[in-house]
Amino acid sequence: MLERVFPRLPQGRATLLGPGDDAALVAVRGGRVVIATDLLVEGRHFRRDWSTGYDVGRRAAAANLADVAAMGGVGTSLVVGLACPASLPVEWAETFADGLRDECDLVGAGVVGGDLSRAETIVVAVTALGSMRGLEPVTRAGAKPGDLVALAGRLGWSAGGLAVLSRGFRTPRALVEAYRRPQVPYPAGPEAADLGATAMCDVSDGLVADAGHVAAASGVCLELSTDSLEVTGPMRDAAQALGQDPMRWVLAGGEDHALVATFPRGTPLPDGWRVIGRVTRGRGVLVDGEPYELGGFDHFR
Amino acid sequence: MLERVFPRLPQGRATLLGPGDDAALVAVRGGRVVIATDLLVEGRHFRRDWSTGYDVGRRAAAANLADVAAMGGVGTSLVVGLACPASLPVEWAETFADGLRDECDLVGAGVVGGDLSRAETIVVAVTALGSMRGLEPVTRAGAKPGDLVALAGRLGWSAGGLAVLSRGFRTPRALVEAYRRPQVPYPAGPEAADLGATAMCDVSDGLVADAGHVAAASGVCLELSTDSLEVTGPMRDAAQALGQDPMRWVLAGGEDHALVATFPRGTPLPDGWRVIGRVTRGRGVLVDGEPYELGGFDHFR
Repeated sequence: MLERVFPRLPQGRATLLGPGDDAALVAVRGGRVVIATDLLVEGRHFRRDWSTGYDVGRRAAAANLADVAAMGGVGTSLVVGLACPASLPVEWAETFADGLRDECDLVGAGVVGGDLSRAETIVVAVTALGSMRGLEPVTRAGAKPGDLVALAGRLGWSAGGLAVLSRGFRTPRALVEAYRRPQVPYPAGPEAADLGATAMCDVSDGLVADAGHVAAASGVCLELSTDSLEVTGPMRDAAQALGQDPMRWVLAGGEDHALVATFPRGTPLPDGWRVIGRVTRGRGVLVDGEPYELGGFDHFR
Repeated sequence: MLERVFPRLPQGRATLLGPGDDAALVAVRGGRVVIATDLLVEGRHFRRDWSTGYDVGRRAAAANLADVAAMGGVGTSLVVGLACPASLPVEWAETFADGLRDECDLVGAGVVGGDLSRAETIVVAVTALGSMRGLEPVTRAGAKPGDLVALAGRLGWSAGGLAVLSRGFRTPRALVEAYRRPQVPYPAGPEAADLGATAMCDVSDGLVADAGHVAAASGVCLELSTDSLEVTGPMRDAAQALGQDPMRWVLAGGEDHALVATFPRGTPLPDGWRVIGRVTRGRGVLVDGEPYELGGFDHFR
């Protein structure tokens, strides 16, 4: 399997020594490296009848590269552990590698190493390295009262796609595709760091939950306004057909890997960022001035 | 579980930002970083009735830190993915973290991040970063005819322990302990790089197999001599009791994480390294002048 997978993996600009030895060697500028890791487990994070090997490769790379972007970094290198049943077709692993490659190509990252093992179900373990290009990392802990809260990327699309698939449908296609392959706003991460973002977080657990992580780490309150959050046509239509609230997908759905960040008031935000609230004294998250009840969201994980 | 595990994890000297944010930040000297990754799967690489959570933590860290040492590097930082059943006692994860900590402490590494997920069986995914401290990495590809082949660390102990456990015994204790917690000769890796080793490899698949990796990558033959390989008392006694050949454990048993390296002839080898053969023109591995048949070794993986 390795022989058929290796040639499909992307090289990456920072790779000094790639797969095949005891370890790989990666170039690092600025004296420090960002590192993130993530597991995807079959039956918990993905189902093989809903996602192809290619889709899982895209998502596994995206989850980690988005975490790097959420620090203000740019992903440079991945290592990938794949535990899978003996019955898994080699084609699954090949297209999985193609998915890793295509997601890595979005930021110029390479796959520099990996490990392969048998297991009852598929477990994908990806670790990403990233460069800060000399910038200070943007943690979750720096938001200050008076800051703007801003968002880059999409919300609710993946949750909508999951809701559709969970009910046995395959359309609207735009939502299902969004669930299968998140569209991560990679450049927005380093951009936010450049602009002096005071805090940043990848939206992988849902906007309210992840805004809550920033609020908790910073010791502040994030007040969000639904007026500034977009519910698109396909989302509204699908939600209506399923009898669900599309704003709930936007506020509580994860896996779109949008970025939420706080900026000093008056920061000129470029295209791709939009203001969705403000930071105040206090604790937690308010949505339109009220606490938001997260319990009961049907998250497939 | 995370709340009880995090405080037990080691900090590490290179850690600039540890667990709790989207990603961690690690200091890197010399403009490049070594990276290795490894999976341990329950029922394949370990059994919970043979190894405690602590043992699995030690082994998971050791497998990766040994790979870093085999490049001539020193491990600085680990990220750890743990997929486990809901029924797993929190104590297992706590002692697993203690095992990671104690192995990391041997080289001064820290655990800087991780991910936790549910799964049917335990899957541990560890990625290690390491520093080359300005030295050139020692790959598997540089061995030259005329070089010495030398070994640091132990061989056959883990295989002996596994053979004993597989037959339902718990003694000799020294072998069983060696299976549970390999004793990796970490300082020997950077030492070999300092001494000008031409190639190096971690012995995790067995001496003949891993010497074969060096032979293949370097395009040479590694001729090994069993006269120079140690079969200790407990190993001989256990092998006799089980009706097995202890030299087979030494030649084909993996998981002790010894280091095999090649050096220019005349290199003064310090304590801890011993010459076990020489590099010649040709291909593959010879043991006492003959090809060695690896098939049929009962490896638990």
